[in-house]
Amino acid sequence: MSTSERQATRRSLQVALGERSYPIHIGSGLLGDPACLAPYLVGRQVMIVTNEAVAPHYLARLKSGLPGDAEVREVVLPDGEATKTLASVGRIWDALLEAGFNRRCTLIALGGGVIGDMVGFAAACYQRGVAFIQVPTTLLSQVDSSVGGKTGVNHSLGKNMIGAFWQPRAVLIDTDTLQTLPAKELSAGLAEVIKYGLIRDAEFLAWLEDEMTALMALQPEALAWAIERSCQLKADVVAEDETEQGVRALLNLGHTFGHAIEAHQGYGRWLHGEAVGVGMLMAAELSHRLGWLSRTEVERTAAIIAAAGLPLAAPADMGVEDFLARMRLDKKNVDERLRLILLETLGRAVIHDQAPRELLEELLATFPRN
Amino acid sequence: MSTSERQATRRSLQVALGERSYPIHIGSGLLGDPACLAPYLVGRQVMIVTNEAVAPHYLARLKSGLPGDAEVREVVLPDGEATKTLASVGRIWDALLEAGFNRRCTLIALGGGVIGDMVGFAAACYQRGVAFIQVPTTLLSQVDSSVGGKTGVNHSLGKNMIGAFWQPRAVLIDTDTLQTLPAKELSAGLAEVIKYGLIRDAEFLAWLEDEMTALMALQPEALAWAIERSCQLKADVVAEDETEQGVRALLNLGHTFGHAIEAHQGYGRWLHGEAVGVGMLMAAELSHRLGWLSRTEVERTAAIIAAAGLPLAAPADMGVEDFLARMRLDKKNVDERLRLILLETLGRAVIHDQAPRELLEELLATFPRN
Repeated sequence: MSTSERQATRRSLQVALGERSYPIHIGSGLLGDPACLAPYLVGRQVMIVTNEAVAPHYLARLKSGLPGDAEVREVVLPDGEATKTLASVGRIWDALLEAGFNRRCTLIALGGGVIGDMVGFAAACYQRGVAFIQVPTTLLSQVDSSVGGKTGVNHSLGKNMIGAFWQPRAVLIDTDTLQTLPAKELSAGLAEVIKYGLIRDAEFLAWLEDEMTALMALQPEALAWAIERSCQLKADVVAEDETEQGVRALLNLGHTFGHAIEAHQGYGRWLHGEAVGVGMLMAAELSHRLGWLSRTEVERTAAIIAAAGLPLAAPADMGVEDFLARMRLDKKNVDERLRLILLETLGRAVIHDQAPRELLEELLATFPRN
Repeated sequence: MSTSERQATRRSLQVALGERSYPIHIGSGLLGDPACLAPYLVGRQVMIVTNEAVAPHYLARLKSGLPGDAEVREVVLPDGEATKTLASVGRIWDALLEAGFNRRCTLIALGGGVIGDMVGFAAACYQRGVAFIQVPTTLLSQVDSSVGGKTGVNHSLGKNMIGAFWQPRAVLIDTDTLQTLPAKELSAGLAEVIKYGLIRDAEFLAWLEDEMTALMALQPEALAWAIERSCQLKADVVAEDETEQGVRALLNLGHTFGHAIEAHQGYGRWLHGEAVGVGMLMAAELSHRLGWLSRTEVERTAAIIAAAGLPLAAPADMGVEDFLARMRLDKKNVDERLRLILLETLGRAVIHDQAPRELLEELLATFPRN
């Protein structure tokens, strides 16, 4: 594409959060474009945080888009979910203090959701809060963690247990970065895209069923629309409920089961999106057993998850009690009731804490294992 | 005092921060009173965090004021500023996760400012934010760190560099706890009380000059009024400027110099209030050299600081460059300008970033050393 063609395909949306509102820009060629980053920098001090997998592809391109007078430092962390620890965030804080960066600095998160969550948390707590910009380079982070201000790290006893709500100044989604994304990670991102259709937009879900082949083939217009629609659906939910008191919990469809899988396997063995894919199917199956979804609707759910290249079975070594023990720690729980996100129908999710324990245990016992 | 007399001396004020507003209750006998804590607990899970100096005196009394069905856990940390680290906060997070505490838990900070700052930060970032109650047991924490929502820990490269803004559900100030406070710590608390007079209330400053002997003798009515007026003055400032964009910086009178002293000596060698006392005198002296304060006003400042039992000289081993190097890292600085809080007159402070470098260096060179 030429530069003008590229610019013509750019789209933007606004996440409406009062004085914490911020834009998401989506398109090709954003990374090296000086007009994209400059408006969101606070002061001259810029700390780019990325990882060893992303840096060789995109770090130089990102830096070429920074103003000439910026004082730029970098932290390059190892790749993967195992890096998402307080110790890694400590490295970012050390680097900021060693550089003498003050409150008017800007952090830039260049990478997937792990980098975004850690950099957001580092920004939230450095000198009690500084600016940061998200530059998500995976489909998952583009449609999920770049919207909503959830930041944090894992603890050995639970995923995302330490963190803060902190909004970026802007999100820049350069769709070119998906060209180097491994196929497994594309699928993992599509799990979250499918989720938005399942919980809130039956029409989008039907469009995804039609276009899944184009998405898997990285067809640019299809990708751009899938990202924009996903961000818009998430932004709508977040605007309604910034700190997850109510409707925002619906975004966790499949996540209670999925987190249990990730935690039990050890973070990083299953991709987050893969675990969420299976988790959504478990939620759909439980919704069916509660009499809400028809068998056909469960089958449609399984079919689109399969079409996105995602697994349909839980890990062979996870028993009922393995699931239950992990699920009890879930942040959505109120006092001791297990709260689950379930589907009334395709396109409408609900928060439910009345599922009979026997029904849940039966589901966990009979759900397919690989 | 009888119970009814005690209750008659209780006073309350409200920190007005919209939906994050909270009450401060001040009085005798609050700690063991079941009516004081119960209204502010969220759910049944309660984690009390205190230190080895405070626990023997007040932990049992605090617990006797909790509802019978509360699930209570404790973390007892070492005493002192050296404890105020990310590692200590990590111990609180470990304890919360090991107990399986969910988002509807309540943390209670029983102790001085170090405990309050750490527990507030632990609450701010546990599962992205849970409730906490401040029960400050030192004069300093009662008049300072219990109001305003600043939480955090020290880093080897700077004080309070990692933290968050997070408001408590309530602050309970039991004036009985001052009876066991070491004299040095009473003086350190009085430094902050004097500060409120200096920056914002000339009438309160004059009252303090009259009543300093009564305060040093722990006279209950004088203490209660000094605490209430200090909290009210701080609450007014915080309500105007919750996240320290403007007027709130005035609360840092004496703190830029004071932090430099604390950091250079190694945290915990000088009490925070002692360092702030000297810092306020340095700020008053610099204000005089700028032509703002009269010599008489500087002498009044020195006299009330001395009457509170506080040192009037900086550490003998701190040179001009030792001060400057530490002061450059101060969070109030914007880009590279050094921002100081100075006094236009007694009772009125201003933010100033135009003090000539030579004047500052001359002050640092000539200010008395001990």
